[in-house]
Amino acid sequence: MQTAEPTELFDLRMSEEARPLYDRVVRFLEDVVAPMQEEYFRLGEGRADPWTYAPGQVEALDAAKAKAKEAGLWNFFLPDSEVGGLTNLDYAYIAVELGKYPLGSESLNCSAPDTGNMEVLERVGTPEQKAQWLEPLLNGEIRSAYAMTEPDVASSDAKNVRLQAVRDGDEYVLDGEKYYISGAGDPRCKIMIVMCQTNPDAPAHAQQSQILVPMDTPGVDVLGPMQVFGRDDAPHGHMHIRFTDVRVPASNMLLGEGRGFEISQVRLGPGRIHHCMRAIGQGEKALELMVRRGKFREAFGKPILNLGKNMELVSRARIELDACRLMVLKAAKAMDVLGNSSARVYVSAVKAMVPEKVCQIIDQAIQIHGATGVSQWTPLAGMYTSQRTLRLADGPDEVHHFVVARHEAGRYAEPAPGRSEALGDGVFAGP
Amino acid sequence: MQTAEPTELFDLRMSEEARPLYDRVVRFLEDVVAPMQEEYFRLGEGRADPWTYAPGQVEALDAAKAKAKEAGLWNFFLPDSEVGGLTNLDYAYIAVELGKYPLGSESLNCSAPDTGNMEVLERVGTPEQKAQWLEPLLNGEIRSAYAMTEPDVASSDAKNVRLQAVRDGDEYVLDGEKYYISGAGDPRCKIMIVMCQTNPDAPAHAQQSQILVPMDTPGVDVLGPMQVFGRDDAPHGHMHIRFTDVRVPASNMLLGEGRGFEISQVRLGPGRIHHCMRAIGQGEKALELMVRRGKFREAFGKPILNLGKNMELVSRARIELDACRLMVLKAAKAMDVLGNSSARVYVSAVKAMVPEKVCQIIDQAIQIHGATGVSQWTPLAGMYTSQRTLRLADGPDEVHHFVVARHEAGRYAEPAPGRSEALGDGVFAGP
Amino acid sequence: MQTAEPTELFDLRMSEEARPLYDRVVRFLEDVVAPMQEEYFRLGEGRADPWTYAPGQVEALDAAKAKAKEAGLWNFFLPDSEVGGLTNLDYAYIAVELGKYPLGSESLNCSAPDTGNMEVLERVGTPEQKAQWLEPLLNGEIRSAYAMTEPDVASSDAKNVRLQAVRDGDEYVLDGEKYYISGAGDPRCKIMIVMCQTNPDAPAHAQQSQILVPMDTPGVDVLGPMQVFGRDDAPHGHMHIRFTDVRVPASNMLLGEGRGFEISQVRLGPGRIHHCMRAIGQGEKALELMVRRGKFREAFGKPILNLGKNMELVSRARIELDACRLMVLKAAKAMDVLGNSSARVYVSAVKAMVPEKVCQIIDQAIQIHGATGVSQWTPLAGMYTSQRTLRLADGPDEVHHFVVARHEAGRYAEPAPGRSEALGDGVFAGP
Amino acid sequence: MQTAEPTELFDLRMSEEARPLYDRVVRFLEDVVAPMQEEYFRLGEGRADPWTYAPGQVEALDAAKAKAKEAGLWNFFLPDSEVGGLTNLDYAYIAVELGKYPLGSESLNCSAPDTGNMEVLERVGTPEQKAQWLEPLLNGEIRSAYAMTEPDVASSDAKNVRLQAVRDGDEYVLDGEKYYISGAGDPRCKIMIVMCQTNPDAPAHAQQSQILVPMDTPGVDVLGPMQVFGRDDAPHGHMHIRFTDVRVPASNMLLGEGRGFEISQVRLGPGRIHHCMRAIGQGEKALELMVRRGKFREAFGKPILNLGKNMELVSRARIELDACRLMVLKAAKAMDVLGNSSARVYVSAVKAMVPEKVCQIIDQAIQIHGATGVSQWTPLAGMYTSQRTLRLADGPDEVHHFVVARHEAGRYAEPAPGRSEALGDGVFAGP
Repeated sequence: MQTAEPTELFDLRMSEEARPLYDRVVRFLEDVVAPMQEEYFRLGEGRADPWTYAPGQVEALDAAKAKAKEAGLWNFFLPDSEVGGLTNLDYAYIAVELGKYPLGSESLNCSAPDTGNMEVLERVGTPEQKAQWLEPLLNGEIRSAYAMTEPDVASSDAKNVRLQAVRDGDEYVLDGEKYYISGAGDPRCKIMIVMCQTNPDAPAHAQQSQILVPMDTPGVDVLGPMQVFGRDDAPHGHMHIRFTDVRVPASNMLLGEGRGFEISQVRLGPGRIHHCMRAIGQGEKALELMVRRGKFREAFGKPILNLGKNMELVSRARIELDACRLMVLKAAKAMDVLGNSSARVYVSAVKAMVPEKVCQIIDQAIQIHGATGVSQWTPLAGMYTSQRTLRLADGPDEVHHFVVARHEAGRYAEPAPGRSEALGDGVFAGP
Repeated sequence: MQTAEPTELFDLRMSEEARPLYDRVVRFLEDVVAPMQEEYFRLGEGRADPWTYAPGQVEALDAAKAKAKEAGLWNFFLPDSEVGGLTNLDYAYIAVELGKYPLGSESLNCSAPDTGNMEVLERVGTPEQKAQWLEPLLNGEIRSAYAMTEPDVASSDAKNVRLQAVRDGDEYVLDGEKYYISGAGDPRCKIMIVMCQTNPDAPAHAQQSQILVPMDTPGVDVLGPMQVFGRDDAPHGHMHIRFTDVRVPASNMLLGEGRGFEISQVRLGPGRIHHCMRAIGQGEKALELMVRRGKFREAFGKPILNLGKNMELVSRARIELDACRLMVLKAAKAMDVLGNSSARVYVSAVKAMVPEKVCQIIDQAIQIHGATGVSQWTPLAGMYTSQRTLRLADGPDEVHHFVVARHEAGRYAEPAPGRSEALGDGVFAGP
Repeated sequence: MQTAEPTELFDLRMSEEARPLYDRVVRFLEDVVAPMQEEYFRLGEGRADPWTYAPGQVEALDAAKAKAKEAGLWNFFLPDSEVGGLTNLDYAYIAVELGKYPLGSESLNCSAPDTGNMEVLERVGTPEQKAQWLEPLLNGEIRSAYAMTEPDVASSDAKNVRLQAVRDGDEYVLDGEKYYISGAGDPRCKIMIVMCQTNPDAPAHAQQSQILVPMDTPGVDVLGPMQVFGRDDAPHGHMHIRFTDVRVPASNMLLGEGRGFEISQVRLGPGRIHHCMRAIGQGEKALELMVRRGKFREAFGKPILNLGKNMELVSRARIELDACRLMVLKAAKAMDVLGNSSARVYVSAVKAMVPEKVCQIIDQAIQIHGATGVSQWTPLAGMYTSQRTLRLADGPDEVHHFVVARHEAGRYAEPAPGRSEALGDGVFAGP
Repeated sequence: MQTAEPTELFDLRMSEEARPLYDRVVRFLEDVVAPMQEEYFRLGEGRADPWTYAPGQVEALDAAKAKAKEAGLWNFFLPDSEVGGLTNLDYAYIAVELGKYPLGSESLNCSAPDTGNMEVLERVGTPEQKAQWLEPLLNGEIRSAYAMTEPDVASSDAKNVRLQAVRDGDEYVLDGEKYYISGAGDPRCKIMIVMCQTNPDAPAHAQQSQILVPMDTPGVDVLGPMQVFGRDDAPHGHMHIRFTDVRVPASNMLLGEGRGFEISQVRLGPGRIHHCMRAIGQGEKALELMVRRGKFREAFGKPILNLGKNMELVSRARIELDACRLMVLKAAKAMDVLGNSSARVYVSAVKAMVPEKVCQIIDQAIQIHGATGVSQWTPLAGMYTSQRTLRLADGPDEVHHFVVARHEAGRYAEPAPGRSEALGDGVFAGP
């Protein structure tokens, strides 16, 4: 992706318009979201049914959302739309900050999977679809889910989708199974976009479709929550759902039969890069905790930070995070300049790079905390399992590395010199 | 180095003025340097005395240099000077390309250690010193060396310098030993800048000085060449030199007694970052060779590239090189915007990051080439030993990591929360 | 630890006496423990109070224990005792197998922390202490805990213990706080061994003592469970306990005031090595799952195992596990031959080596499983968090590496040759 | 390779018979080889033609060889032969020691590629072949080479051999090219075993043969030396040879046409494992140098060993070397107990494991030495390039990993459970 890159791709500055927004977001997170979060989690502790909200929780969150909306800190994620989202580049700077707060994204109505669903609806929805679902999502009134992954096939190969949607008059009838449908446990979740197979006899990339399925449609059975390293993340949840003879109007089809992949292209670029931005925020948080723990905890007569390899780990974390940040900014810029489709190699590069490195940094921050590092007393354990999972979600690392490698391999059409005379390589050598 | 970074640091675009220069350099390397190199190395093969040039070698090189100078592709490395060098950022783009050719830098009069010596002379030299040494260096008429490292002390701690320079009337008398003085084997090398101890009783950072010593001064004994993984890089050479009662005029002192460290600051930032830029060029070359070998060599019925982990290695190499490039560009920009001194953490970060990663990429390219990879038939083995050595030169990785870590640790003055109530970390989790 | 090692240390064969026991254990695990486990966990699902056992759970476990006891598959861990435990080497082979089953160790009365507590009581307990606590532990009638780690100090430096035990007439009065007291949540847990500070004015290693504290002693307040990556492992639990004016008879003191470290030496060697043995069992399980998943799951038209680097990961896992196994066997043998104290460098070596490598293997097995890998559908996520925690428990990796390095550094009393003439190193070279 | 391994494989003790031999070898290396080496290399310095020996060199070596032979420290490598070699296990202990001295193996007539050639001749040679070539080799009177690798095909896939040998009456006529024929530069080298293609139409593994070719046969043209990271290892050399119409008697064929692979099995197991044994010796040497340099060199007011991660590197090196040693001993034992053919997975495991880890350790030892580490003043640089090359020789790491993985994959014939109910994984967790 180096050859003949437009110069513009290297202008990674936040725009002048975004700068004050960014500053206000940082303040909003500190002043409004941080205390709200604290209250929200305190309210939620020990509630009898983890799959419902405790009294006051949603109210606390809604109050913050209302303030954000009023302040214009809202729906930043939708570039080139009437909604007035930021460019991917400007949003990247903000999303890093959102990633430092568990409820940061939701407070500004920028949380997954709603963002992806809103982007899809905005780009390809019919006016009716927009009115019914996009509107309340943009207003933060409901939440949504995206049903893609299936338990019995390798979803890394998207052609494997098995959930069937068969046209029957004015309806589609869905049968099959999905799992890890994040957010589908939330009582506020009202609508799912479901990836399904509609045209099994078409060419591989024209077999799939995406269709809207309201959560309360008969035949939608939540079999239970899937866990993530033992957590169920109730009430948000990553649900396992059986679709049995689920009937939805044919008008729920998005864009048209067999265009499921086309829609994926709309959502996946931004979704993946948003994940990476927030991952950097979490990496920064982990590094901060690592340093603060290391400086002020003593063992063997010294701050832990000064023992063994800890200082070098801090340096390596700082370097990797800075490198990740520049790579993500450039991928965001590539999406702004080249469009999502042409920017996909950039997106795969950061999706393969960032979560893996952030996992490693969080892991090191855990180690420096001792047993407290794996406990509920720091956010590190949760951050680790979240980032570790991200290495599997939206395409496992391996698939993204393959995309990058295939592109790189495509640059050369001639073999390397099998042998040659002295190349004077010696001249390279030496300090 | 994140907090409150000036927005400007993220504008990593080559300037509009530099673009055509860059394009011309790329063409010049292909059209002039590549064929000249081939001839140069062929002429040098099998010469009786490796420490002299074969007839025609210097002439071939000089012809290319003359063309470059005439074309204005000359002395790019000196920003903010009358010489009209480029900004560090613009030069970074060009230096990556120079790094792909063993004689690239020298053809454009941009090769180490001359660049550092010229920068020092330009910034702190007296008019006389400039006339005598800077002038011919800028014209590419002579070459030079920098004598810093000593065999018997750890040079990573600069306070360890032991070579003594004692004032005696109008002269300084030098006694001691230096090794790995790169370029001091070249018959064209006429002058050394020598780091010495002049004030052993001063505070640690005011004990050292830098002084000009012509190569032909009596008492300068070249004991022999130091090797780099078995190579001696003749006739350039990394020489081991004994200074015995070496007398130079007191006017050869640079800037003044006890100001050796101050001068180091002048040279080290740019020198280190130039190394990193060229390292990226070598990494790019290695990746290219890796892909080309992998695509067109078969084993077990498939291109080697499609076997095992090779595609993933290509992807990781591409990602790391792109990340290194952005980090180096940003460090160069930091030098342009903040000045060399304030940019030192940026410089340490890339010095610790780039050669290590480039070493790894070259190593993988070697592996994919089989025995040919370690042979004289590709430049890989020479590139490897060169980059591996760079992890020790101009400060070993460990020292640069320490600089970065110390800066990072300095950002936090308060401990991490030792324990706290539920942080709602669960909410981070999930795909 | 190489120099002059007794030849005997390299005889890593299971003894002939142990072989039939080993075979019977393997069968017992398959025939009795596996189905019991299944029932046990099914019974436990969805019970109202996670901190109690569901009806039938303990009964199922007790039935298996009774069978094991009757079959003589019981208390294998106590070498050189009247109980008739196996040598550390023989037990090592068996413990690897136990590690593959969550309830394997407990079924044979070989589970931590009871094993360590029994070992301590057997080695240093008074006849009264043995009658009251060792007897029922050896019979599997009660369970126990070990309270060592404190939340507010770095426990990696054992001198940091802050919980006070003050002699007051015939009693000791304990005040302070401990956390991550594993097993203290179990209703069957009746007794704790508590590491405490009794002699703050004594030399550093004579300040601490270990004392028996029954769980139901007034002043023992379980503040709540500590989590491990979000799990609380109820009802076993890793409890956070406040000791407020807790009074126990002076006869509960183990071995005598100020001898806490001496006792640690008794328990830590075996405890650490048992952990490593079981870790290898888990690594083997993970590798098995990795291969089986990889062979029978397809993506992009091939078994996943044949994609990218997966085959190499399998090879590396096999190699590392075999190496870990040999190292653990040798450390066990060293304990048998040299005694626990002299074998401590061997123990530190495996404690630093094994859990880290096993973590990595489990992590790779997770990756090959996709989202299912982090779910409750395989044991991998639980195994990962368990092994990751082990890198912090019983001394973090860093401390064990330091022990090994200090021993290695102690072998050399003279500097390396600073410089020397040609060493003919070239002769080493070549394929 | 775990399942149902014979107990015997875990008896890794040196035999009682070998112990005194081992002790004598260690003394011989110190007392005879070390001073001889020093003289040998001093004599060789600066000789005019690097491809001949300087006067006295061969004599010095021969004197040591005579002493070794007289002392019965000779030809240890040939188990189960009339020559009376040691078992692979016993030899392993000795070979580690030989690896610490550049001329250790040759002094005891145990150096590659002679060992492999002698083993082949002993196992499959005719009485005439033995009389002519094996005899003088066993006596250390001549040296030999093995011509396997070709420059234009991937030798990792042995079916790629292209050098043709065509039967013509009582002769074979060879045409083709080989490179990296180690030892073929030595004036004492008299005979080569050449892998060639004789039956291009036979099944893949019956196309190749091995044939004896005296070095002085007309048509054998040494094109020049191949380098290893810039070294040519003269006069030993890794030669590039063109075979043009080379005629040898048909009786020079080993074992019979088409049996080249069969012969490879004879030589490769022992050869690979010998390499690994010596590699461990080099790793031990590197670790020793690392510690000695680190303890007695100071920077920033401390021994370098106490800075940063250096102590942990020492620990990791010690652990990995011990693990490598046990793995190599077990592979040697497997060859003794199971035979070379059945032991091949064991051999591949150590060939893939040991050189890679030893490379890393040497690399770290280099780093701690600063510039001296890459110089001719320590053996480290030569050891590095040698071990790095070993990762390509006798099968690159990748091929050996594939062998191990294929074996592991073959152990399982059923898929992993795709999903299952709660596995009680939580019970694994916790410190």
